[in-house]
Amino acid sequence: MNIREAHPSDMSSVLRLIKELAKFEKEPEAVEVKVEDLINSGFKKHPDFKVYVAEVENRIVGMALFYERYSTWKGKAIHLEDLIVEEKYRTGGIGKALYTEVLKYAYKFNFKRVAWEVLDWNTPAINFYESTGAKVMKGWRVVHMDEGSLSQFAQNINRNN
Amino acid sequence: MNIREAHPSDMSSVLRLIKELAKFEKEPEAVEVKVEDLINSGFKKHPDFKVYVAEVENRIVGMALFYERYSTWKGKAIHLEDLIVEEKYRTGGIGKALYTEVLKYAYKFNFKRVAWEVLDWNTPAINFYESTGAKVMKGWRVVHMDEGSLSQFAQNINRNN
Repeated sequence: MNIREAHPSDMSSVLRLIKELAKFEKEPEAVEVKVEDLINSGFKKHPDFKVYVAEVENRIVGMALFYERYSTWKGKAIHLEDLIVEEKYRTGGIGKALYTEVLKYAYKFNFKRVAWEVLDWNTPAINFYESTGAKVMKGWRVVHMDEGSLSQFAQNINRNN
Repeated sequence: MNIREAHPSDMSSVLRLIKELAKFEKEPEAVEVKVEDLINSGFKKHPDFKVYVAEVENRIVGMALFYERYSTWKGKAIHLEDLIVEEKYRTGGIGKALYTEVLKYAYKFNFKRVAWEVLDWNTPAINFYESTGAKVMKGWRVVHMDEGSLSQFAQNINRNN
């Protein structure tokens, strides 16, 4: 197994993993991102994210995608958006190796926090994260306003002004 | 009441609001960020965040701080990190005006999602967000690894390698 930074040509494999996860979460239609979007956003001069991939026999079987955030309490932070390992390669330490790589990056570049989200029924993941010193926050809910609602909200404002 | 983009000289007022909120959440000691950090991070060439402030009689009484994220399902997204209004100015529409300004920005620049976090007991906030079309996600937990744990994790890796 080999962990390395992703190249633009890996983005089709990365999208395959993103879609597999969405299918597993029963939202296969929710993925609107295309390979070109990942290439354009991830490999421009100031990229929107960074990706590590895990290879087994030259095939990409896992990935970790992350980017910078800012905590008004702690300062600059990393957000781990996705940590995905192909189903049949799980429990083989690949997820842990990708996770470790992201934390090493955060430590090396002096980030003050690494944040991510986990499903509350995913006890094995929660146990693993806690065993590494991460803290599952109680009481916070994630809120999303997606494109459709955003567009409707913006149009209502314009109508009322 | 006037809403405008923040200047570097507003950062001491912005930090005052951040600290007031931390005190309200009973974590006054958790704020490690300094005025200089906010100025350096928010006003460099590729700033880590953007801030709108709300003024009443030339005094800053509210702020919204946000930055870009990336959704592997939807594409580029905005994260609303903080939306703070001084206690005695609440229920006067200032929070809504700041919130609206951030959503207008996201719509104007074609972001695919706006995300934020809310405390699950904060029913008035949740009701307000839902009334604007936002969706409170069920089942997701926020996970943080802060500086101390990150440093310990990184040192353990080095010891074991």
